[in-house]
Amino acid sequence: MKKIPVGILGATGIVGQRFIQMLERHPWFEVSWLAASDRSEGRDYGDAARWRLKTPIPASVAKMRVSAAMPENAPKVIFAALDSGIAAELEPRFAEAGCAVISNSSALRMAKDVPLVIPEVNPDHIKLIECQSWRRKSGGFVVTNSNCSAMGLVLALAPLHKRFELETVMAVTMQAVSGAGYPGVASLDILGNVIPYIAKEEEKMEEETRKLLGTLNGAGVTLAPFKMSAQCNRVAVEDGHTESVSVKFKKKAQAAEILEAWAEFSGIPQVQKFPTAPEIPVRYVDAVDRPQPRFDVEFGGGMTTTVGRLRQCAVLDWKFTLLSHNTIRGAAGAALLNAELLKAEGYLE
Amino acid sequence: MKKIPVGILGATGIVGQRFIQMLERHPWFEVSWLAASDRSEGRDYGDAARWRLKTPIPASVAKMRVSAAMPENAPKVIFAALDSGIAAELEPRFAEAGCAVISNSSALRMAKDVPLVIPEVNPDHIKLIECQSWRRKSGGFVVTNSNCSAMGLVLALAPLHKRFELETVMAVTMQAVSGAGYPGVASLDILGNVIPYIAKEEEKMEEETRKLLGTLNGAGVTLAPFKMSAQCNRVAVEDGHTESVSVKFKKKAQAAEILEAWAEFSGIPQVQKFPTAPEIPVRYVDAVDRPQPRFDVEFGGGMTTTVGRLRQCAVLDWKFTLLSHNTIRGAAGAALLNAELLKAEGYLE
Amino acid sequence: MKKIPVGILGATGIVGQRFIQMLERHPWFEVSWLAASDRSEGRDYGDAARWRLKTPIPASVAKMRVSAAMPENAPKVIFAALDSGIAAELEPRFAEAGCAVISNSSALRMAKDVPLVIPEVNPDHIKLIECQSWRRKSGGFVVTNSNCSAMGLVLALAPLHKRFELETVMAVTMQAVSGAGYPGVASLDILGNVIPYIAKEEEKMEEETRKLLGTLNGAGVTLAPFKMSAQCNRVAVEDGHTESVSVKFKKKAQAAEILEAWAEFSGIPQVQKFPTAPEIPVRYVDAVDRPQPRFDVEFGGGMTTTVGRLRQCAVLDWKFTLLSHNTIRGAAGAALLNAELLKAEGYLE
Amino acid sequence: MKKIPVGILGATGIVGQRFIQMLERHPWFEVSWLAASDRSEGRDYGDAARWRLKTPIPASVAKMRVSAAMPENAPKVIFAALDSGIAAELEPRFAEAGCAVISNSSALRMAKDVPLVIPEVNPDHIKLIECQSWRRKSGGFVVTNSNCSAMGLVLALAPLHKRFELETVMAVTMQAVSGAGYPGVASLDILGNVIPYIAKEEEKMEEETRKLLGTLNGAGVTLAPFKMSAQCNRVAVEDGHTESVSVKFKKKAQAAEILEAWAEFSGIPQVQKFPTAPEIPVRYVDAVDRPQPRFDVEFGGGMTTTVGRLRQCAVLDWKFTLLSHNTIRGAAGAALLNAELLKAEGYLE
Repeated sequence: MKKIPVGILGATGIVGQRFIQMLERHPWFEVSWLAASDRSEGRDYGDAARWRLKTPIPASVAKMRVSAAMPENAPKVIFAALDSGIAAELEPRFAEAGCAVISNSSALRMAKDVPLVIPEVNPDHIKLIECQSWRRKSGGFVVTNSNCSAMGLVLALAPLHKRFELETVMAVTMQAVSGAGYPGVASLDILGNVIPYIAKEEEKMEEETRKLLGTLNGAGVTLAPFKMSAQCNRVAVEDGHTESVSVKFKKKAQAAEILEAWAEFSGIPQVQKFPTAPEIPVRYVDAVDRPQPRFDVEFGGGMTTTVGRLRQCAVLDWKFTLLSHNTIRGAAGAALLNAELLKAEGYLE
Repeated sequence: MKKIPVGILGATGIVGQRFIQMLERHPWFEVSWLAASDRSEGRDYGDAARWRLKTPIPASVAKMRVSAAMPENAPKVIFAALDSGIAAELEPRFAEAGCAVISNSSALRMAKDVPLVIPEVNPDHIKLIECQSWRRKSGGFVVTNSNCSAMGLVLALAPLHKRFELETVMAVTMQAVSGAGYPGVASLDILGNVIPYIAKEEEKMEEETRKLLGTLNGAGVTLAPFKMSAQCNRVAVEDGHTESVSVKFKKKAQAAEILEAWAEFSGIPQVQKFPTAPEIPVRYVDAVDRPQPRFDVEFGGGMTTTVGRLRQCAVLDWKFTLLSHNTIRGAAGAALLNAELLKAEGYLE
Repeated sequence: MKKIPVGILGATGIVGQRFIQMLERHPWFEVSWLAASDRSEGRDYGDAARWRLKTPIPASVAKMRVSAAMPENAPKVIFAALDSGIAAELEPRFAEAGCAVISNSSALRMAKDVPLVIPEVNPDHIKLIECQSWRRKSGGFVVTNSNCSAMGLVLALAPLHKRFELETVMAVTMQAVSGAGYPGVASLDILGNVIPYIAKEEEKMEEETRKLLGTLNGAGVTLAPFKMSAQCNRVAVEDGHTESVSVKFKKKAQAAEILEAWAEFSGIPQVQKFPTAPEIPVRYVDAVDRPQPRFDVEFGGGMTTTVGRLRQCAVLDWKFTLLSHNTIRGAAGAALLNAELLKAEGYLE
Repeated sequence: MKKIPVGILGATGIVGQRFIQMLERHPWFEVSWLAASDRSEGRDYGDAARWRLKTPIPASVAKMRVSAAMPENAPKVIFAALDSGIAAELEPRFAEAGCAVISNSSALRMAKDVPLVIPEVNPDHIKLIECQSWRRKSGGFVVTNSNCSAMGLVLALAPLHKRFELETVMAVTMQAVSGAGYPGVASLDILGNVIPYIAKEEEKMEEETRKLLGTLNGAGVTLAPFKMSAQCNRVAVEDGHTESVSVKFKKKAQAAEILEAWAEFSGIPQVQKFPTAPEIPVRYVDAVDRPQPRFDVEFGGGMTTTVGRLRQCAVLDWKFTLLSHNTIRGAAGAALLNAELLKAEGYLE
């Protein structure tokens, strides 16, 4: 099978680097085009990017010339890892030019006709693509994945919501510095410190969670009807967002049933064995002090959400801790899994 | 005025060291006796203790001989900074011998006739002393302060509870490593990590908060009737527990009223100007990303609880972040303020 | 006595902030003018600066308007905390306009007629001022202090060089992130990491050390004739540069003599009791595992160099560890002490 | 080929865990026996050990019963990861009972008839085994590997010493906390700090380096005749010792020749393709700010020493930075490679 050429918008950033890393040996896709800001344009990627990952830059990518962020010579499948402001301008331009834009940016996530998708959770939402004007004009479209802090939460909630119906969700996050990109958080701000604020993060978590767990409804998505409150903090962790979560259900749930719901959770990516799919999308660790970023963040190649410490909540019903890799499952891996879903569903032909 | 001689049980630990530091220039009390485990007994304190504070050991204390932990030659006022198991055995023994035991340990906090006190919040609870059998026999008694994670929370909640009546409290903590004592948390466990578990901490927070905000009721305390749920995490911070809190009140509260309640909050320690009392027990910082351990933990000499980020909660009514110094206000300073209250009320004569 | 009005060039940076902090209650100087980059010009300092110190912004300074970095309305005494490139352009302009420019920048440190001064070490070097063309034209001049990594080293070496004559110096540094300014070092670069490189730092250390310990020689300074090699590393420490040093002397030195040389070391700032002078410029800590940033960096208000672990070196003669506060003694405090020397010597009239 | 059963003394510690991890899929050896302190004896390894590695405990090992540390039922090949004091007592006992004791402990490293070996550097030293009285009596023997701080240094020096003859070596280390075992360094001691002291580490580095590069001489090793001085520091890094090194040679060396010596360096493990051997024992990274623990410590499976920043030294001849994984190449991996050498040379039959 010939691989599908893909491009990366925002290729020099932390998420752009993760795309390159995860695509290095991908059986379906291959990187053929990289774009970044004007500063990088025309330079070799290896020179333009300040590579921050532990595996080396793939040699073929290092020598690739960074293109201008214009759709003219870009391939038809584009991964976008852009700052929100730039995404709002560029993503529609690429979609209009006929590209499948698989975006990690927040700019269009909540737009009525833009699917916000996690393949294990709401794969049917990709049908919204057909409502997009770009699609009708040029065949192009935009599909998005969620914010890194919503991702792990929704994966942990989805099997519970399906079975017990969520009434209330409260989540407090302790987020890794890589979520802020590079250079991102200054060391003087985080060494020995906690920053109890991440701009717009709480709003994104609250609305995206409800869209992801919402129901497709003609030309839009009806948000899931539960109440949701988030508090977001930054901590001195490199990779991995940890979240303390409390939930209340409409139906009574026993601990064993919750564990069972997580253990049985699986979706199209697992059934169809997508290349980037984790075998276990939600894993429960039965230890008193887990999950921990140090031990659990890489599980399932960084695509698994690890849950632990399920116990009763004196206010809502149940509380637990979850951990999700923020630049893999929460960013590049999420978009890649969306691309695999789109491919499987015939949207990339 | 002649200073009252005081002793310290558990003098070599992190909290014991804080006692010594805070008592160095105290106008009412002076350290005259130090006790620690068998290993330290008979040695000079300067040799026995692995001093971990930034100010040097007071010279007079460094040369003091560490005594056996027995009441025979101890002074009549004892600060106790013992592990819970040892405290359960030793504190009653000292009380029985006629000592005023001002304890930071958890062993007796929830005992029916033992006051759990924050002088700004529930000073009247010290009357429980009179219900103690030790008191009747020898004049001795035990008074306790709360767990370090409950302390900042209760200071922030007290003015709100008084004015709006709490119905529900949810708190997620990000706690400093000094809370685990020394050597305490291994560096391999916390560098670049979050540990979502502290043994018995959630239980302590939930019950102590309700006892502190409860009402004295003859020979005991009726717990405050709100629901409370806590989740406790350890982060790579040296000093200062940060907490993400959500609350629901019985009476409707406007943001301005909440800020006013905090601003106006004051108690006996402020009115009577106790030596260790902070001028401002609860301070609100009007900045989008505060409080932070780096900037706020030392405010008020570590005796002030700093609050910030008051905003509406989509589930309960309001949410906010608080920060409290865990080994000062949350331990040694708490006990010291209790001692000052006891002195002011005539219990140390 | 009326205070001398002073201005600060580069007032919003980390060192600029330290100047403001250290000048808050200074008996001789008062901040009357602040300048920073175009981005900050015209704004209130409190808005323009991202204040990163633990003490609050002095209220009077917070309300001060940030001026353009031009000498026209500036006071006659200027503290400069500029990046080297900008300093090379601005410092001469202010000197030419008649200002006493007391600079922390590296731009002019090694210029033949610019004194590089530590008041305890080479106060006589300020006479080079008279060789400056600015001085003759307008009365203005430039005086500099050393790089933060050279500062602690030279303070530790000066008493030894005087007594035993240095033949060889080798130093390896472990430098704090605040030395790189703000935002400076990205958290992703330093959490759990060591960066074995700081641009131009080794060269600065090597040449500045020899100029500071050199001898005034008409219109210039003859570098001290010892050999010097430096290796500079960045570590995850907030404030305080730790250095592992080995030295060889021309004259034989016993350990006791070295300790004596350090203990007796004192200079004009101590004799004349300059406001910013530490009582003890070089302190030896007699403990097997000190100095440590955690315990020793604030000693002497951050103006003392702490030395420890003196022991024989199997290659050179002696080795030891030193610690110096990089933004106080190594930057703002250094310049301030130079200003105090200039004032005492009549150069600020 | 049937695998050789091996035992691990000190199996629950950090290095013991690394042994288990590295032996999990080893083609020549399999873990058949585990011993640890009395506290662990008789328990399942999975319960007894506080597993601190990122990969999970091998299932077969988790269920293995921890034996008493006595040679009676132990296999004939023993990896020892014991504290020095206990090693001094137990290692001779196992050797006397006929075991091949492949030790990571420091107890016997400098003993006249005990080989201290790095297979790429001084494989001939294993012949010292024949001088051991245990060998003659029971066939048992002890072979040791070096301290973690000496290991990376010697690998980097060996090719240079062979070609240019070392005259002088100075090394300053910045060592990871895992080198101190678990719990090891308290978080309160290292967060935001540098500790300029590791007990006995400088002495070990200085003498072991010279023994490893020394020459076999009948019944002992003549230490290499260069001068060596080490200064050892602990920093807040999890894994990987970084070292700033300066060297002087007897023969003149050009930079290109040094790089060539490193590039060409290879030994028996590479030639015979030992399972644990890194393809590249010493790798030079041509980047201005490398090696760094974050990016380089895992190279070659943690068995490669990474070198960088080669530049002239104003005191000696050349200086450079090196990085070595302290619990892999510096401990368990070192012993394992020694075992592979012993196997290849017929000592394990």
